[in-house]
Amino acid sequence: MKIYLAGPEVFLAEAREIGERKKQICGKYGAVGHYPLDAALDLAGLSPAEAARLIFKANINAIDDSDALIANMAPFRGPGLDGGTAFEMGYAAALGIPIYAYTNDPRSYLGRARSLGLVARVDEHGRSRDAQDLEIEDFGLIDNLMPVCSAKELSKPMFWRAGTSAAEGLDTGLAMFEAAVQQAVHAFR
Amino acid sequence: MKIYLAGPEVFLAEAREIGERKKQICGKYGAVGHYPLDAALDLAGLSPAEAARLIFKANINAIDDSDALIANMAPFRGPGLDGGTAFEMGYAAALGIPIYAYTNDPRSYLGRARSLGLVARVDEHGRSRDAQDLEIEDFGLIDNLMPVCSAKELSKPMFWRAGTSAAEGLDTGLAMFEAAVQQAVHAFR
Repeated sequence: MKIYLAGPEVFLAEAREIGERKKQICGKYGAVGHYPLDAALDLAGLSPAEAARLIFKANINAIDDSDALIANMAPFRGPGLDGGTAFEMGYAAALGIPIYAYTNDPRSYLGRARSLGLVARVDEHGRSRDAQDLEIEDFGLIDNLMPVCSAKELSKPMFWRAGTSAAEGLDTGLAMFEAAVQQAVHAFR
Repeated sequence: MKIYLAGPEVFLAEAREIGERKKQICGKYGAVGHYPLDAALDLAGLSPAEAARLIFKANINAIDDSDALIANMAPFRGPGLDGGTAFEMGYAAALGIPIYAYTNDPRSYLGRARSLGLVARVDEHGRSRDAQDLEIEDFGLIDNLMPVCSAKELSKPMFWRAGTSAAEGLDTGLAMFEAAVQQAVHAFR
């Protein structure tokens, strides 16, 4: 079984080390992890736009080749997930590739927005709105309903780890990730 | 021709009015716009999670029924696009539905991050990093390379409108949108 490992860890200084740890965990359950930095791409001499397109294609090929996708939906530079991860979840969803999502930040999207001081007002319908007067979505979910509802397991504890919060930084703990690997491997059998 | 209209306008107080304007523009070119708020869903009595799932399915059905997707990649609560829009772009990309993207904010992702004061340091490789030490992606693109590279037109002027910036709010001007409709309709013929 092959699992695509989506998430913003690729932007960390220790991106490769975390990828190796994730792949080791996959291996422990008999699966192979496809990490976005695995492809040995030769980007020398390419323009930034050409390099971006090559990376795009490599990631797409890796998802196409996967039996499941595990997404780290950690909040990324705001209350919501990384746009690249959201894109990859959508791509996998359309292909019917099962998606397992996790986050180490157990708060709802609205809860995160509140923590970040983003609620400017509550309108006459009781909806929270930000400084741009954009409604802050509140279905009690951890993020925008599109990526959240694409995950095979919507309400399982994998979305939540009581008593913790990753508000101060990207929590690189892998307990939730390992639970997702177990679920993915179990469902694939 | 049917076009799915992805973007964060659905969160504005005037969400429906903007949807109507977008659909009128589609009609001007002989196309039908599918706006996420079009589905007449009866959410009464449903739990928030059930309501979210029904909206998810309605949006997925609308994308499945579309010949193209136009995405408003406006920055949303940070330097990057809305996670729901990113998800929908990924979904359409996997189905081979052509994607046309636009933004009224012409700056690169790094440029936006700089404006928001998100650059905490520049590392030894010349890469900008935020306060969580996450690299701020810089391929000179307007956003994460995955959604950007999924768009059929990557380097066309539709991504840029010189001399303007929507940093202060969601720019609801529809000139870039109309250009995207023209491109979509032209390619579909």
